[in-house]
Amino acid sequence: MPLATAADTPAPEAPAYPLLIKQLLLTPLAVRPEQEIVYGDNVRFDYCTLQARIGQLAGLLTSLGVKHGDTVAVMDWDSNRYLESYFAVPMLGAVLMMVNIRLAPEQIAYTLNHSGARVILANRAFLPVLDGIDDQLPDVRTRILLEDEADQPLPAGFVTEYEAGLRAATPVSHFPDFDENTRATMFYTTGTTGLPKGVYFSHRQLVLHSLAGMAALGSAASQGRLHRDDVYMPITPMFHVHAWGLPYVATLMGIKQVYPGRYLPGQLLALIAREKVTFSHCVPTILHMLLGHPSAADSDLSGWKVVIGGAALPRALAQQALARGIDIFGGYGMSETCPLLTLAQIDATTLGGSDEALSLRTKAGIPVPLVDLRIVDEDMHDVAHDGVATGEVVVRAPWLTQGYLHNPDASAALWAGGYLHTGDIGNIDAGGYLRVADRIKDVIKTGGEWISSLALEDIIALHPAVNEVAVIGITDTKWGERPLPLVVRHAGSEVTEAEIIELVAARSRSGDISRFAIPDRVSFVDAIERTSVGKINKKKLRSLHDLGAAADAE
Amino acid sequence: MPLATAADTPAPEAPAYPLLIKQLLLTPLAVRPEQEIVYGDNVRFDYCTLQARIGQLAGLLTSLGVKHGDTVAVMDWDSNRYLESYFAVPMLGAVLMMVNIRLAPEQIAYTLNHSGARVILANRAFLPVLDGIDDQLPDVRTRILLEDEADQPLPAGFVTEYEAGLRAATPVSHFPDFDENTRATMFYTTGTTGLPKGVYFSHRQLVLHSLAGMAALGSAASQGRLHRDDVYMPITPMFHVHAWGLPYVATLMGIKQVYPGRYLPGQLLALIAREKVTFSHCVPTILHMLLGHPSAADSDLSGWKVVIGGAALPRALAQQALARGIDIFGGYGMSETCPLLTLAQIDATTLGGSDEALSLRTKAGIPVPLVDLRIVDEDMHDVAHDGVATGEVVVRAPWLTQGYLHNPDASAALWAGGYLHTGDIGNIDAGGYLRVADRIKDVIKTGGEWISSLALEDIIALHPAVNEVAVIGITDTKWGERPLPLVVRHAGSEVTEAEIIELVAARSRSGDISRFAIPDRVSFVDAIERTSVGKINKKKLRSLHDLGAAADAE
Repeated sequence: MPLATAADTPAPEAPAYPLLIKQLLLTPLAVRPEQEIVYGDNVRFDYCTLQARIGQLAGLLTSLGVKHGDTVAVMDWDSNRYLESYFAVPMLGAVLMMVNIRLAPEQIAYTLNHSGARVILANRAFLPVLDGIDDQLPDVRTRILLEDEADQPLPAGFVTEYEAGLRAATPVSHFPDFDENTRATMFYTTGTTGLPKGVYFSHRQLVLHSLAGMAALGSAASQGRLHRDDVYMPITPMFHVHAWGLPYVATLMGIKQVYPGRYLPGQLLALIAREKVTFSHCVPTILHMLLGHPSAADSDLSGWKVVIGGAALPRALAQQALARGIDIFGGYGMSETCPLLTLAQIDATTLGGSDEALSLRTKAGIPVPLVDLRIVDEDMHDVAHDGVATGEVVVRAPWLTQGYLHNPDASAALWAGGYLHTGDIGNIDAGGYLRVADRIKDVIKTGGEWISSLALEDIIALHPAVNEVAVIGITDTKWGERPLPLVVRHAGSEVTEAEIIELVAARSRSGDISRFAIPDRVSFVDAIERTSVGKINKKKLRSLHDLGAAADAE
Repeated sequence: MPLATAADTPAPEAPAYPLLIKQLLLTPLAVRPEQEIVYGDNVRFDYCTLQARIGQLAGLLTSLGVKHGDTVAVMDWDSNRYLESYFAVPMLGAVLMMVNIRLAPEQIAYTLNHSGARVILANRAFLPVLDGIDDQLPDVRTRILLEDEADQPLPAGFVTEYEAGLRAATPVSHFPDFDENTRATMFYTTGTTGLPKGVYFSHRQLVLHSLAGMAALGSAASQGRLHRDDVYMPITPMFHVHAWGLPYVATLMGIKQVYPGRYLPGQLLALIAREKVTFSHCVPTILHMLLGHPSAADSDLSGWKVVIGGAALPRALAQQALARGIDIFGGYGMSETCPLLTLAQIDATTLGGSDEALSLRTKAGIPVPLVDLRIVDEDMHDVAHDGVATGEVVVRAPWLTQGYLHNPDASAALWAGGYLHTGDIGNIDAGGYLRVADRIKDVIKTGGEWISSLALEDIIALHPAVNEVAVIGITDTKWGERPLPLVVRHAGSEVTEAEIIELVAARSRSGDISRFAIPDRVSFVDAIERTSVGKINKKKLRSLHDLGAAADAE
């Protein structure tokens, strides 16, 4: 790699201007110091106060011995305290470790120890979990209590309650510059198998992610845009991939931010109404729950913009949301990618209630600036962008985890060939819209084609007698793999193997799915194995049903 | 400065992803390959062709020996060729030198030689200039002709005509990564005195400038925004501070771009109408010319968004433009700053025809993301943000020139105290809006106050007998400096010294200007000295009129 131009030297006092998270506060503080931050029903303050509280939190952490390179864990619902941690911890040069509160207690203990955290900020709601793993946490001994009720006693083992600690702290008023590649945040992914894997992001990566996210979300002509007069409320937890990075984007834009605490549908709907929330993001399930909640019927949700990620946006949910006046659209990313990769924003010319627009809304979307997104075959050759040909989604961008923490083998596999392997397969249409079809491990490779197990499941699930279905690939000497549907029938309902095969064959004749997807046989089972977080455990299913496999390569 | 976290190593194949100009093409090519680039009346092609032509230009330059670190000069009106050079030259690792065609020929020779250019792409229109300085350009011997007429002979000394060269070239299809701090562009500032000074910008700086510009322009709720369905046409030349960086922003956004060639008011108005241009930027003088052109009366300019920079936006021009339905607003930056620093975008709550909104539109505006903008006194202490207190505008941002090329003294002065000194004085109001009042060298420091020479000139110019006025500060042993108005009267008109003094005194009594601004005397002169580019030459005026000055410190 050639060196930077050396023909001239910069002025001695010209600062390097490393990209640091503290700089995200510059513009909002200069322009909108009076803008609001709201947490639930009881906390409301302005950006000036946010800045002051960040300084106080940094002072508190410093007084507890936190220094450059240390890891500070947070275990909280979505709150202003979490937002303050998003800034104060990295601005000290320390690493913010976001605890996935949905993990089993033993996994939480594993991730805390693996991250090297010695300090934790924990909501009282999680004391039972912490107490249960206390003897597994010999090094996590500095504990700060996050408390939502007044005048509660401080539990044993905690050095202070958060607000009392902030009041007593000597605020940090000057945060020095340091290397922009300093680690700022980390958290753990949850696969269906194995131990959680740590991903990590630097100041440079988060600043670039914030800028590109603001650029992508701001520049849409009308549909799917975030602007400075919006009101933001996350409904993807702040422990999960920085709540998609949107708290940083919202701060950089200087917009009003609302943090809802624990996600309770009635409370979320009440906050949307009271605080005039206009922009959120969530998984399909949460939106489905919200729209089905009794108080949703009386709520005016028109003008609310919602990005759907974590799973594909179902067409029916999109229609239901559009009927309520919600501007709903897909987005795509993952823990390893910070996460923003694509957004399903639509040109004005395609907008309206058209079927094409609806289809585009349910896709993963178009790449945000600086994302180099490809779909490739197994030899890393690009497949056609025709909306049909599928391949693995691989990416480069300036904000992807550079590996898994202390896990060189998984890191090397993640980055094999110089692109980050998402493990997803998908297609790209002529307009550049990505559709994610399946996890690559769940794709069935048969007769030279890749068949989406999810697409097959969607077809079979339509039969009224089918209660649950999972499709796996089983080893086949002639075809490589063949699809095997595992079907749980509704109690008292009947459906035969031949009927299910014909269901798929009919859809193949109408061009909806490849003829290679038509199963040769169907297994009826009593139950389908799931993981601890409720996902279908296809690895387990393959080990149970694919007796021809020499070994599971996973 | 502490090192980056060293606790873990990245995956060996994970790319560093340096920020490089080639990445600005990723998203538009993925999403809008069919989008148009238009040059004048005869050239129109899509982004796919743009990419192909960039590869061809890089191939042509490579065949002529251009390599990493070389400097390639361009001398053209605004054209698709210039846009192609914006990408192809830096993508080779070479430096694009943008020749200021308004300089005197000897200054053009000086800047070409000082930049180290050996290759030049020159429009036929500038052959007389080049011929006149040919013997001063011993090293600039590889010349490519930019030709707008068909079938013209190739002049002596030129290796090829541009289009013929592109057709014959072996295109570069792969542009390798290199250090993001590699110099990408350079050009020369034109002060009122001394030799032009070279400023330079790296790939990293231009990518960050583009992202931040897109984020700032995109995120406004309604007024003053640029979005993906806009049509862009520059009316600030491409040789001048990258046409404000907007060709890079427009490309990154994948929007239609129109390049107008030489600025001829009738042609500009015709292009706006024919190509449905919705976003431009220019200096006040150009817009004034356009609105005064005969064909402007018949033009529908409503919905046209125009950023005004280079000089403050006069209130009367803003009103005139608003009456035509133009969304007009100020912006601020300079050659040394890439240039974007602020944009006068207005919140929806302040919008409408209100007087406050009009005032805000004429200001320099609010900082774009990541810009650390201060107004400071002579000891670098911040002055109040009350819309009144003035100080020098100093900045940090990740895209400022790190110095002047081969000029360590000027570089050190530019960055004294670790902030870039703009040389402008201004104030900031409580909403964060900057107003630039004057050049600091033209400010009159009297009785402990800073008086804007421009503000005094505006007051005196209102007298009907005054044809021209320039106000300078002259040395005063008691007050430091005192203002001296130099007045040229209209032929046949009369106005006395006392009348002019009373004009200012009245405005001081009404609170518009400090009482220290009331001049003690007035000089009536026959003419006011100007520079070669038509600016009032205050340095010359001070040397002629300030006989008390021991030496001019400039």
